[in-house]
Amino acid sequence: MTLRRRSAQAPSRTRSAKGIPLDSLSPLDRRLLERAVALGRRGWGRVHPNPMVGAVVARDGSVIAEGHHGELGGPHAEARALAELAGEVGATLYTSLEPCRHRGRTPPCTEAIVGAGVARVVYWAADPNPEAGGGGDWLRGRGVRVEGPFGEEGDWAAENPLFHHRVAAAADPEPRPYLALKLAMSVDGKIAPSGGRRVWLTGPEARAEVHRLRAGFGAILVGTRTWQADNPALTARGAVAPLRPPIPVLLDRRGEATPELRALGNRAARAIVVTEPSARAPLGERLRGRAEVVAVPNGPGGLDLSGVLGSLGERGVESVLSEGGGVLGASLLAHGLVDRLYLFVAPAVIGPGGVEAFPSPTSPGGDMVDSLAGWRQRLEPVRFGSDTLIVLDREVSSIPATGAKS
Amino acid sequence: MTLRRRSAQAPSRTRSAKGIPLDSLSPLDRRLLERAVALGRRGWGRVHPNPMVGAVVARDGSVIAEGHHGELGGPHAEARALAELAGEVGATLYTSLEPCRHRGRTPPCTEAIVGAGVARVVYWAADPNPEAGGGGDWLRGRGVRVEGPFGEEGDWAAENPLFHHRVAAAADPEPRPYLALKLAMSVDGKIAPSGGRRVWLTGPEARAEVHRLRAGFGAILVGTRTWQADNPALTARGAVAPLRPPIPVLLDRRGEATPELRALGNRAARAIVVTEPSARAPLGERLRGRAEVVAVPNGPGGLDLSGVLGSLGERGVESVLSEGGGVLGASLLAHGLVDRLYLFVAPAVIGPGGVEAFPSPTSPGGDMVDSLAGWRQRLEPVRFGSDTLIVLDREVSSIPATGAKS
Repeated sequence: MTLRRRSAQAPSRTRSAKGIPLDSLSPLDRRLLERAVALGRRGWGRVHPNPMVGAVVARDGSVIAEGHHGELGGPHAEARALAELAGEVGATLYTSLEPCRHRGRTPPCTEAIVGAGVARVVYWAADPNPEAGGGGDWLRGRGVRVEGPFGEEGDWAAENPLFHHRVAAAADPEPRPYLALKLAMSVDGKIAPSGGRRVWLTGPEARAEVHRLRAGFGAILVGTRTWQADNPALTARGAVAPLRPPIPVLLDRRGEATPELRALGNRAARAIVVTEPSARAPLGERLRGRAEVVAVPNGPGGLDLSGVLGSLGERGVESVLSEGGGVLGASLLAHGLVDRLYLFVAPAVIGPGGVEAFPSPTSPGGDMVDSLAGWRQRLEPVRFGSDTLIVLDREVSSIPATGAKS
Repeated sequence: MTLRRRSAQAPSRTRSAKGIPLDSLSPLDRRLLERAVALGRRGWGRVHPNPMVGAVVARDGSVIAEGHHGELGGPHAEARALAELAGEVGATLYTSLEPCRHRGRTPPCTEAIVGAGVARVVYWAADPNPEAGGGGDWLRGRGVRVEGPFGEEGDWAAENPLFHHRVAAAADPEPRPYLALKLAMSVDGKIAPSGGRRVWLTGPEARAEVHRLRAGFGAILVGTRTWQADNPALTARGAVAPLRPPIPVLLDRRGEATPELRALGNRAARAIVVTEPSARAPLGERLRGRAEVVAVPNGPGGLDLSGVLGSLGERGVESVLSEGGGVLGASLLAHGLVDRLYLFVAPAVIGPGGVEAFPSPTSPGGDMVDSLAGWRQRLEPVRFGSDTLIVLDREVSSIPATGAKS
């Protein structure tokens, strides 16, 4: 199965829209808008398929109410912030997304805004969803002073990657899941010492963040060597209890998985084990009641990874976090299948003998100075203990025309 | 010349002091204290040998005045913030450093605080300077509610590294300058493609930050290959005009420098060229009026780097930023002479053939998984465009007992 790439359908849709430059906001407006964006992040793992949205209500520069969309089906950020107002009119509402004007699970935010007597709305991101968009114009028509969107679509998508992917995928007959690759590495780009000896490079704060990130993904993908060596549970045991627990996905070309694996013992999310067609029947028999066994054709160096993602997409998986190992990550990168890199950089040097986080699949001794060309850091880096999380997002323009680079 | 290490004199002094846990502050107090610390940073390059200090005055949670120490000899942060108050009494002062109680270039801040009717002082760092310290107790004796210090000395030193180094060096008969090493590297820890082909890894925002950083250092150090290949001016051409321009320092063991080099044409800061004893006389003759030529004995792999730093220290240089090249940086690291790493990480992969930022001096194929053990990231990482600045500070306990590792 060959997946058509999202970029081929709608390159102009996904990253090209531009708003007003952020620099044109006053420092106060900008700070409160950034606060709204930060509040929105609290919805991670709890609101999908809705976007994460935060809102701040201020008057004369002082914050009088805050809110965020905290739960799918629960009130939107604007409604939560406005609910805190006690009849106060003439305030300014800062929100991270254009207020919706459609009646979905909850009433339109635009009506709540007018009803609360808000005089001015400053919003950050345009709503890419044709159903929900247009709230700004609707409010303008009712005499509310509306400013936005600010910045550009690449930044909006980086803040709400799964939401933007979903909107774009809606126009794609064969959508593939959004794929993020997590790498924990030393400052010299190694994921393990030579020989693959296992070390904890990152500290407990970074590992807790990985659990928090897991809560927002539909599936957690690992390669054969990783589940064979670590027997991971692949559950989200962090600060966020996921609304829907991520599905453990194990690659198992040779059909070696056994029912005792920890990842197959998860009552809340039934695992998927991917193998090649000839191994499906015996493996399905062995894992009966423990996992769904899916067959995917072999590619040149293992299971066809586009096929793996396609199979997950057909099963309703919209997003995948790949956590290891190094070989799988390198293959995903080499095939141009990675949308986002979560790089946890630990203050350690492993040295030239270590296992490369970015091995060159074709020319091991060669240079690849442009191999991340077109990747951008749109989110701020974050420190976890002494480790740093750098998030790199692939710009649509950098996706190769053919699926594989190797 | 063998430098005794600062750590050997006063290990307990430099990092061991502890304050009240930051967690015990209310979110509002903590935010305003962090704001004071951020304001203090504006003094970079302009206040040395004073510390960088910021202050915020608030009442009922609202900021009513802000200030920072902006200029050596100018008013202190507290005085600047309090000068904005118009007779208002009963406010809270947040300051990044314990208010001074000594009369130096300006009157004691403690008196200004009492005079302004401040009811409460929240300060972050203890003053390590025996002359200036004790302001907290003095204020308590006059009925001001005083809270602080918060956090720990390692964090205070990371925020004001040159100040803390200077206080520690005052007790050292042979102090050496504080040394920071800047590396611009790919995510896989390479500083250049194979063969040393020159590329700009980082973007303009990161390069502007390097110029801003230069403004705070007493000298900028480069190795032979760097000045021969790049002919850099080594001036601080960034957002901060340094109070005293950094001195360009060129290593030139073989005595090959010529008067036309850009670094020697700086009217504001006369360059220092370091060579071996036998080359001093002819080189001094050639560079007469353009640079001071200093002789340092040869070490095993080039000029003795401890000797280079010692010579700079004798000339009053208190801090050095080493910017290149790779060989010099690796030697400084291998000899345990680096206090701080400024790692600019660009979103690029160079691959296994590239020039390592952290070469192993003894076992090129070996693992060095602990070679940054004891280094900590105490400052937050910062994004510059798509690049990330990670600052790692060496903990005193990690300094090797002998000077050289190799």
